[in-house]
Amino acid sequence: MSGGDEGDGDGHESPQPRRKPVVVVVEPETPGNVGTIARAMKNFGLTDLKLVDPPELKEDGEAYGFAGHAREDVLPNADEVTFDEVVANYHTVGTTAITGEDDQSHERFPFKTPVELRESLETVDAPTAIVFGREGRGLNNEELSRLDEVCSIPAADDYPVLNLGQAATVLLYELRDLTVDETQLPDTAVTRAPEGDVERFHEFFGEFLESTGQREHVREKNALLMRRLLGRAHPTEREIHSLLGTFRKANTKLEHADHLAAKHDEPVYPRE
Amino acid sequence: MSGGDEGDGDGHESPQPRRKPVVVVVEPETPGNVGTIARAMKNFGLTDLKLVDPPELKEDGEAYGFAGHAREDVLPNADEVTFDEVVANYHTVGTTAITGEDDQSHERFPFKTPVELRESLETVDAPTAIVFGREGRGLNNEELSRLDEVCSIPAADDYPVLNLGQAATVLLYELRDLTVDETQLPDTAVTRAPEGDVERFHEFFGEFLESTGQREHVREKNALLMRRLLGRAHPTEREIHSLLGTFRKANTKLEHADHLAAKHDEPVYPRE
Repeated sequence: MSGGDEGDGDGHESPQPRRKPVVVVVEPETPGNVGTIARAMKNFGLTDLKLVDPPELKEDGEAYGFAGHAREDVLPNADEVTFDEVVANYHTVGTTAITGEDDQSHERFPFKTPVELRESLETVDAPTAIVFGREGRGLNNEELSRLDEVCSIPAADDYPVLNLGQAATVLLYELRDLTVDETQLPDTAVTRAPEGDVERFHEFFGEFLESTGQREHVREKNALLMRRLLGRAHPTEREIHSLLGTFRKANTKLEHADHLAAKHDEPVYPRE
Repeated sequence: MSGGDEGDGDGHESPQPRRKPVVVVVEPETPGNVGTIARAMKNFGLTDLKLVDPPELKEDGEAYGFAGHAREDVLPNADEVTFDEVVANYHTVGTTAITGEDDQSHERFPFKTPVELRESLETVDAPTAIVFGREGRGLNNEELSRLDEVCSIPAADDYPVLNLGQAATVLLYELRDLTVDETQLPDTAVTRAPEGDVERFHEFFGEFLESTGQREHVREKNALLMRRLLGRAHPTEREIHSLLGTFRKANTKLEHADHLAAKHDEPVYPRE
């Protein structure tokens, strides 16, 4: 096993090819958790799973049942390795829910949060292994002392221990900038309407307010309220065009109502 | 059911009391996923779980098996509600793996990422419900169209669909700044040694380099290298004190070696 063959040509085109971390699980007890981790790996662009002393993973068992599409590649391609091999071949990051409180213990302190780990790994190019421990007890101090760094997920003080599969999912999610070449999401989450269209809406809305017969200082307040509201909401082009259509119709009818009232010498609002 | 009773006095002291979101799961099919979500809620400081048309949750079944300590409170206190009740009483955030590509569809666009959702919820104080859909099909367009906002987790383009329990875990992790009053982690992840101690180490290291007989410009390079290395590593006080002890001893012995060599007219390095 060599740490140097990660990220080699697998037909994956990436603008900045980098070695993606491998994921190591030490003595997992529950096949379902191995499947959950495999699925999270595939969701966040990772492929290389290594297992230290795993349970048997049957094709009709829970590991495959929980793996989603990772049952096709990540899970069947998982390697069985020893802890010693991992330490020898990778820059290793151990994970733990329980850290040291201060620098009295070198095993669990200092530690990095997932965000700090991502920021730190961004700056290096080394074969890296993210190492998870057993369901019940995690990694022990002897194991942590052999790893290069320690990472811990911030969680509620009264119950900070995440399930193994959930912890791996959170950490791989947080490392996604290093591992996911392209997400399913469009580049922009909001396409704000052209400013000219937004301004046209505000003109329409001003005419609309005038039609209601409000006094000028009230109209000004209401116009500003609408400007603040749309300013925060970042309307899309489609939303603004729908609003323009709606208010164009309303303003036309309101203007016509003034015309009718004048023509027939009627009040513009019903008498009380 | 009222949205106004979230975050009321439950003995929890918080410097900035705020209404924490409730979590809604619409028609979950697998009890295990409900348990996983309950555990993630407890890990990230949430308590109020609401279920629309859930499966039966038996105390000896998978929901309780997967819930960890949340089997004691979050899970047994879960309410059964209707989708209509949720829409009527909360500011609702729907979750989906598949968004619109642009503003042609109002159901799935615009959307927020989990980080954007957290930033947005930080600025408001409203009873908020995070709504998750079924395992297989998520929330449908008709349901999404009745919710106020849409959130999507960025993941790998070729397999962006997270398992329900894993998606909830990631989203609740990302919202933790709003929901976790105190994490299990100490306030500082690294306690950098006092600068005076670090400087003393650099003096020791300078004497050490001098003892090796390197020429001055080589020594200067090596001293700078060590300054950069420690500057990046943020050594703890304990680490620096260990290093000071080690180099004090080494320097003493090296100095003595010079003395012995001079006294006995021997070379300071072995002859080749």
